[in-house]
Amino acid sequence: MRDLLRVPVGEPVDLSAYDTSRHPSAGPADKAAGSRATALMAPELAELQERLYAASTAGDRRRLLLVLQGMDTSGKGGTIKHVIGGFNPSGCRVRAFKAPTAEERSHPFLWRIERALPLPGEIGIFDRSHYEDVLVARVRELAPRRELSHRYGRINRFERSLTDDGVTVVKVFLHLSYEEQRERLLQRLDKPEKHWKFDPGDIDARERWPAYRRAYEIALERCSTDEAPWYVVPADRKWYRNWAVGTLLLEHLRALDPRYPEGDFDVAECRRRLLAD
Amino acid sequence: MRDLLRVPVGEPVDLSAYDTSRHPSAGPADKAAGSRATALMAPELAELQERLYAASTAGDRRRLLLVLQGMDTSGKGGTIKHVIGGFNPSGCRVRAFKAPTAEERSHPFLWRIERALPLPGEIGIFDRSHYEDVLVARVRELAPRRELSHRYGRINRFERSLTDDGVTVVKVFLHLSYEEQRERLLQRLDKPEKHWKFDPGDIDARERWPAYRRAYEIALERCSTDEAPWYVVPADRKWYRNWAVGTLLLEHLRALDPRYPEGDFDVAECRRRLLAD
Repeated sequence: MRDLLRVPVGEPVDLSAYDTSRHPSAGPADKAAGSRATALMAPELAELQERLYAASTAGDRRRLLLVLQGMDTSGKGGTIKHVIGGFNPSGCRVRAFKAPTAEERSHPFLWRIERALPLPGEIGIFDRSHYEDVLVARVRELAPRRELSHRYGRINRFERSLTDDGVTVVKVFLHLSYEEQRERLLQRLDKPEKHWKFDPGDIDARERWPAYRRAYEIALERCSTDEAPWYVVPADRKWYRNWAVGTLLLEHLRALDPRYPEGDFDVAECRRRLLAD
Repeated sequence: MRDLLRVPVGEPVDLSAYDTSRHPSAGPADKAAGSRATALMAPELAELQERLYAASTAGDRRRLLLVLQGMDTSGKGGTIKHVIGGFNPSGCRVRAFKAPTAEERSHPFLWRIERALPLPGEIGIFDRSHYEDVLVARVRELAPRRELSHRYGRINRFERSLTDDGVTVVKVFLHLSYEEQRERLLQRLDKPEKHWKFDPGDIDARERWPAYRRAYEIALERCSTDEAPWYVVPADRKWYRNWAVGTLLLEHLRALDPRYPEGDFDVAECRRRLLAD
């Protein structure tokens, strides 16, 4: 799926050309098949994660960072619950980025990001990220235009430094339709136990939908690089989204092909000592 | 299980009086029943976690910290994988404490602990903890005796400050037998893909087993408090250990009884606006 979902480097991005319900040429046909296929990936994903972690104990600095971005209700939280939930929590570092605190605002915008990066052997997951600083910051004019326009280059250099340091950066835009967002917000209103997830401000944000969409297009256009490409995942169907993100992770982890390190001790001697005492 | 596994406050602790295979009067009869019972807890645990997290969005500062301690191979990692693995990773903050780094050694021993605490609404999990500073530090004489003896009081005051701040502290000692540890170390030797978890130093540590055991007894004796008691979980059988830790978490979360916050917005008006646009 990497090749199918990747945003081409250096080309203009028109999100209306990307399907929100499924990629036209790939993926399971329906929910039953999709859920089954996602469940079948879990053991391999778990083993690859264990190997990545094991390799780090012998000095392998490689790790993976999954960046999740998308409009409200696009399923960032659901993806973490259903896809990342299959990993061993010991090797995962999940971080949600909300509106920056006073302390965070007193630092450059990448400061809080750098402090949340995965360590060697870990899988890091960002629920929102440094891209908020060119998305909401652009739409709401939270920074001078000139500062904003410099941020794309800073992000690219930052991500390049990560990949140089062994971080595989997988950036996923969960692509949701305007209509499906309406449905999901209505569903939250229907269930009192979902009201804590609801913010009337989310309705105001819908009025700025075209502005957000354009901000995403620019970010994808300027920050899909060879080292750290963006992937557009159709997000109107939860089962398809889970399958697609799981598949992206699987393909990247397979490509890393981390290995269990060999022990540098005398196995027979250790066994003798254990049996002797 | 809380009442059965809790270490009584202010009484001498003799670990030989605690069973390593199962509590004599509670728990499933065999592996099949135990695995089934553990699986049956998962939905309620997940819902309680979601409610805890949801409540924090409305200002509830409560959270839970699970501290896991035990000899090598006692199953700290396995507990995290199997019990914590059922939670939503978004609300979990897992931290493993290894031998302190140079930076960590330059600070008081609680410094690195304070930086890893769960935020309101989260479940924090410590794989080893500040107790290492009265366990390995005592056995290996890594600090002056006088400093060591002050640490118990500091730990109690620190944990008291946590519980005052809304943290439910659940401290679990995974109680493993000397014989079962031998078996587990031999099993690691038998499997090349487990060699990365094996350290010949673990065999050396077995020679100090009585010293470690005594250090645990003292820690449990001096730091099992009304606010933050210790629990001794029999750990020779993985399925029993998982069931017991899951049950302890369930009982504590049920006692917290976190509630979904009510929305403070006009549901009908929001619905109208959503349908209008």
